[in-house]
Amino acid sequence: MPFHPELPGDAEFLGLRADPLPGRYHLTVENHLARLDGRLYGGTAIAASITAAELVTDRHALWMTTQFVSTAPPGEDIVIDVDVLAPGHRTSQVRVTGTNPTGDVMFASLGATGNHRLDGLQGTFENCPEVSTHEESDPFTSPFELMTRALGTEVPMPPVPEGVGFTTVIEFRAPEIHSHPDPGPGRICIWARRRDHVPVTPALAAFVADMVPLSIAAACGVLGRGVSLDNSIRVGAFEETEWVLVDLRPHLAVGDYGHGVAHLWSERGHLLGTASQSATMTRLDLDDLPWDRR
Amino acid sequence: MPFHPELPGDAEFLGLRADPLPGRYHLTVENHLARLDGRLYGGTAIAASITAAELVTDRHALWMTTQFVSTAPPGEDIVIDVDVLAPGHRTSQVRVTGTNPTGDVMFASLGATGNHRLDGLQGTFENCPEVSTHEESDPFTSPFELMTRALGTEVPMPPVPEGVGFTTVIEFRAPEIHSHPDPGPGRICIWARRRDHVPVTPALAAFVADMVPLSIAAACGVLGRGVSLDNSIRVGAFEETEWVLVDLRPHLAVGDYGHGVAHLWSERGHLLGTASQSATMTRLDLDDLPWDRR
Repeated sequence: MPFHPELPGDAEFLGLRADPLPGRYHLTVENHLARLDGRLYGGTAIAASITAAELVTDRHALWMTTQFVSTAPPGEDIVIDVDVLAPGHRTSQVRVTGTNPTGDVMFASLGATGNHRLDGLQGTFENCPEVSTHEESDPFTSPFELMTRALGTEVPMPPVPEGVGFTTVIEFRAPEIHSHPDPGPGRICIWARRRDHVPVTPALAAFVADMVPLSIAAACGVLGRGVSLDNSIRVGAFEETEWVLVDLRPHLAVGDYGHGVAHLWSERGHLLGTASQSATMTRLDLDDLPWDRR
Repeated sequence: MPFHPELPGDAEFLGLRADPLPGRYHLTVENHLARLDGRLYGGTAIAASITAAELVTDRHALWMTTQFVSTAPPGEDIVIDVDVLAPGHRTSQVRVTGTNPTGDVMFASLGATGNHRLDGLQGTFENCPEVSTHEESDPFTSPFELMTRALGTEVPMPPVPEGVGFTTVIEFRAPEIHSHPDPGPGRICIWARRRDHVPVTPALAAFVADMVPLSIAAACGVLGRGVSLDNSIRVGAFEETEWVLVDLRPHLAVGDYGHGVAHLWSERGHLLGTASQSATMTRLDLDDLPWDRR
């Protein structure tokens, strides 16, 4: 499979700019790359790691794990360095590091890119939940709004202020789950797309998949939020799709740490990849909502 | 939850030796830490990363991803360095690197360790397959033997030579799956324990979980093997168990790359953690078996 040149779309979306030094890129923490508190969003760090690794190696992303060491304030310039640890004839093993202007590590990533073998092993071994189509699903603006809905709680959740963070560029809808292949607590599905309708890439899928903590809190039956320890994605065969179904399946929680996965499906129900995440969980304090903390 | 001092068991199992330099350890590629071809086994790299990170931070492993850059020959001395990127009051973000005597990176790991909050969020959101107990299950010595069994193939698989690699310290049994909560191709369960019956730790669970490629090949219906790109684990609440059930659930394959997870259950059906893995897949050539390649 030839390398698809859809990458300029990702680089443009992220505002990724090449440095004269080979393997180095710059990214500014703009509003659409931020969390609801205006600071660097975890999905941005993994999407930038994937895009930079793909650009440097000229190969498809196969997997990427991004560890969050620190976040960065609005407007910060992040330097992203790609080291190719092992440049194989088919697979490149990479390490990507994001640092702030004073040289502090913001995030550290490990992953690989490669060329798919046309006649190679191929198959999907998981099943897509049956859900409402994106046309039939209700829009929502904040993951917290979705969580209160999942919990059926009567708590009056203040609306997320408009024009803040990644929700300005990503549109979300909440489908109903008609049947689930692996039922359990906290199963939540979310339709997501770019507001400009550009089709989903591996980097964008990783960008929107940063929602596992929401499902962990719902599985525990509490209003909660998570601070990501990492975001990871394992990438399959992509097909053109405007919407991606983020199929959240929390695994477990212990001592305020939680883990889980998100299967990523195309509009036609094709498995694009699987994301996973660990997070430090906290119960949500309605007097100290994250979008009031700027 | 106080930090459990079971770690000397892991350090002893791995032959991990502290260097005078803080944060540095040494490991020798002994036979029991090797693959069937006598070279460094992937499970050893993640187990050593976990153990070294736990020793340096004096906290529980929460998650760890280990990327395989290269393997190492029998008898090689590997230097393992732990960098604490962010020493939080409850969670430590770490980076672990394994290098050979000439300074080449053998493996690179990212992860975190932390202290569980006693009254923190807690729960299990996945279900254990119903399988035969370890007493009722047949022993086997090689993953390839298990694969031929799973495929029901008549191919005469040459026996794995005795006394080679990690199978000298780990005992395996193949239970029958009576019912599965998430059925699909390649679902394989394996009971594993240390031959010296020492209970399972997070490091040991990661050591034995390095078997996802086996399930991907089985899901594709071919005799195949994988070269790991990474091994990852997300750790839950451990309870004392001699045997661990490795519940392999392949996700997808594309262009000779494959991805999947392994849920790790105690004898009593408690979820200890979830492992995941990406691998480069190849069809198995019976004239060039991995244990003949030394």
